[in-house]
Amino acid sequence: MSTITMPIPDARILARSSQIIASLETALPQGTVIWDPEETRAYECDALTAYSCPPLAVVLPRTTEEVATAMRICHHERVPVVPRGAGTSLAGGALPTADCIVISTIRLREVLEVDTTNRFIRVQTGVTNLAVSAELEADGFFYAPDPSSQLACTIAGNIAMNSGGAHCLKYGVTTNNLMGLRMVLTSGEIVDVGGPLLGASGLDLLGLLCGSEGQLAIVTEATLKIVPRPEGARPMLIGFDSAEVAGECVARIIRSGLLPVAIEYMDDVCLRAVEAFAKAGYPQCAALLIVEVEGSEDEISSQIEAIRSIAVELDPVEFRSSRNADEALAIWKGRKAAFGAMGRLGDYLCLDGTVPVSQLPYTLKRIGELSKEYGLEVANVFHAGDGNMHPLILFNANAPGDLERAEQFGADILRLCVDVGGCLSGEHGVGIEKRDLMTKQYSPTDMAIQMEIKDVFDPAWLLNPAKVFPLETSQPHREKAKKR
Amino acid sequence: MSTITMPIPDARILARSSQIIASLETALPQGTVIWDPEETRAYECDALTAYSCPPLAVVLPRTTEEVATAMRICHHERVPVVPRGAGTSLAGGALPTADCIVISTIRLREVLEVDTTNRFIRVQTGVTNLAVSAELEADGFFYAPDPSSQLACTIAGNIAMNSGGAHCLKYGVTTNNLMGLRMVLTSGEIVDVGGPLLGASGLDLLGLLCGSEGQLAIVTEATLKIVPRPEGARPMLIGFDSAEVAGECVARIIRSGLLPVAIEYMDDVCLRAVEAFAKAGYPQCAALLIVEVEGSEDEISSQIEAIRSIAVELDPVEFRSSRNADEALAIWKGRKAAFGAMGRLGDYLCLDGTVPVSQLPYTLKRIGELSKEYGLEVANVFHAGDGNMHPLILFNANAPGDLERAEQFGADILRLCVDVGGCLSGEHGVGIEKRDLMTKQYSPTDMAIQMEIKDVFDPAWLLNPAKVFPLETSQPHREKAKKR
Repeated sequence: MSTITMPIPDARILARSSQIIASLETALPQGTVIWDPEETRAYECDALTAYSCPPLAVVLPRTTEEVATAMRICHHERVPVVPRGAGTSLAGGALPTADCIVISTIRLREVLEVDTTNRFIRVQTGVTNLAVSAELEADGFFYAPDPSSQLACTIAGNIAMNSGGAHCLKYGVTTNNLMGLRMVLTSGEIVDVGGPLLGASGLDLLGLLCGSEGQLAIVTEATLKIVPRPEGARPMLIGFDSAEVAGECVARIIRSGLLPVAIEYMDDVCLRAVEAFAKAGYPQCAALLIVEVEGSEDEISSQIEAIRSIAVELDPVEFRSSRNADEALAIWKGRKAAFGAMGRLGDYLCLDGTVPVSQLPYTLKRIGELSKEYGLEVANVFHAGDGNMHPLILFNANAPGDLERAEQFGADILRLCVDVGGCLSGEHGVGIEKRDLMTKQYSPTDMAIQMEIKDVFDPAWLLNPAKVFPLETSQPHREKAKKR
Repeated sequence: MSTITMPIPDARILARSSQIIASLETALPQGTVIWDPEETRAYECDALTAYSCPPLAVVLPRTTEEVATAMRICHHERVPVVPRGAGTSLAGGALPTADCIVISTIRLREVLEVDTTNRFIRVQTGVTNLAVSAELEADGFFYAPDPSSQLACTIAGNIAMNSGGAHCLKYGVTTNNLMGLRMVLTSGEIVDVGGPLLGASGLDLLGLLCGSEGQLAIVTEATLKIVPRPEGARPMLIGFDSAEVAGECVARIIRSGLLPVAIEYMDDVCLRAVEAFAKAGYPQCAALLIVEVEGSEDEISSQIEAIRSIAVELDPVEFRSSRNADEALAIWKGRKAAFGAMGRLGDYLCLDGTVPVSQLPYTLKRIGELSKEYGLEVANVFHAGDGNMHPLILFNANAPGDLERAEQFGADILRLCVDVGGCLSGEHGVGIEKRDLMTKQYSPTDMAIQMEIKDVFDPAWLLNPAKVFPLETSQPHREKAKKR
């Protein structure tokens, strides 16, 4: 464990653990509750692997009603619940506490309804992001948000974190593509919010649930907007010998009124790693952009021409546009392999913050300076079009103090994002990783409103403890909750 | 007054009215507070003119700080506050109570910042919807939501009601185009939410505020997403001799994967009125669609061709596409004049509900049957592409009982919308008009959560009284609020 503290487990719950597990086992079908440490090991951490903790038990329901049963028991026993999707959170959003029950949505795998006339798909939230689009392929539609982990990550996690992805520049993030949901409150009550159509009556609970990181309820079903597949799409590569000029190119593309589907950015550290790993044939340069445009052949050509003329004014090292599907795949190959490639370089912390697009050049320069100050290398690979940065800080987990230094460096980068008018998270959420930085972004009143809304949904503060809100700031709410 | 009851004004407030007005006048610049009935008359009602009530006074601030000052005084004096934009609400969202202070955003008229690199415009919320797009025209951008009242309605009202418009089929409603806001809480505290960039940390207060109908705070500044103007746009007219076939045509267009900017619908009652008023040269038929597509010349042509081939299979009375700007204007002329034209037919209630697109044919048929049962004529003119219906019920305000009958008919139509899987409001909000129907759409738990969120923002329940929540359901909250 490192710089982030977790609350001390409740000894009274630990003392009652076998009785709590027995209640769950009695109420749920066989095989739904696992508690053998050999079996629960897979649930000890998420993709922020620096932190881990075995839970009391893990519940794996197959229906909304089973989730409700588990929630009712935990609520009755006053046991904390950590909701979990596929466990791909990079911010520790699904980290258990020693006194908690993990409720996983991973077995909620049914596709319930596809309706192209009303343009929606309704799924249980354990369906993976990629499986949703696969289900729609034959009808010529897709689901737009596409996190890098889309092969594994579930819709439940996407909703909890308001996930984005490379193609969100054009289509928006999860909140822009979520139409309705079914949720289970801590009391076990089941509530439906929104639905497969426009609606403007009452307070927007749907928007509130999206990105709430399992603080308010467990979402078991989702109605998702589906988007027609474009006729075609074509990426191009633009290499620059300066990070600042690449940032300027992004700003000029956005300012011009063009709307590419994606503008991805990779720096030299990332490019070297990617080339060694995936041999994508990228030019070795200070900064590489992958810009994808879509539409009919004519639209694609005219957009490529417009982007080329913006790029050439900035004297790129290389401009390469794909002419066919194979060339397009080759351009994306390296980007898609980037996180795998970075993993071979050693341990890393993958950050997630946003800055206004116009602040990209300055922010990249400051990250470079901080990298020298901390003596830790950084690789930058991110969604530049919407200013969603993902600096990867490289460190050695076996070197004492290295993780702590990397975390401090990461916190400095996130403070920098907020200072230039940005935000602590673009798509990974706050989790435990950025919990203590929330006061940097939000005023005391704003934080107080957020925590009072948590009180409304989860009066006993049982859901996903010690995440999102700083422990000190939330202490009065958690104290009051104990008395409820 | 008719079937909708308002709470009895607080006699203690009425008794203190001159002192309250004096406090406001002392704290605010001269000319900011008006209370002479001759002057406040313009604020007695909004566009739901069947209901009106003079307020104690009207405050017309020019800055966020002046709004905060007025809110602080009202909070201290425990006086209800009715926030008001341009007063174009069709649901009575800005109807005063006799014991309230109206705080209008109409003088908050400054455009604060235009930033095309980060694609946003920041305005005070008294700026009209159309003025926002006018400000962006030279840069080649526009603001997408376009309510029919866009010449008059303000951004404050658009945010309060989550307004839409004809072009929202492609670009989404207000909540999809709102990036940040500055709000004044009842305490007078000023809080900034969101900003000109992607953000996914903390609970989404921005989404919650949008569409909250002045129940939570007064929004004084807004950061709005701006969208590049398309190269061109072209509408087409498609006439059918059956409402159901027209509904089927809409469903087939949506299902095909095409994404027109707008699909508008007018029925025969509306068409006769429009023709008499605006002489738009529309064919007289049972149902007319206006479908607009946009993009480059090639894109426009291919979309028109695709829509033509869908339409001809359904044997239309007429298919006419515009070949130039003049013909395009001619096609839109009648639709834009529709509400004016209907006004000449007599008094009407303009409803607002949504249904799944696939339910349009059935819903239109049922509305026709209800029209006969109630003996009141209905005209249908609405945004068909996203199932946002606006039936206009014609009645005679001078005939005793006619308004009541029209209101009951309207309530039946809204219940029908909910029954087929729709929603009480697409863009007008709930206001007083649909307050008592909220329990039809929302479960007791859902309503309870919404009202507890109101408690968080407005513990004394002073903001926009007697709107959105049924009086009976909200009674315990209002009682508790009195003790705060």
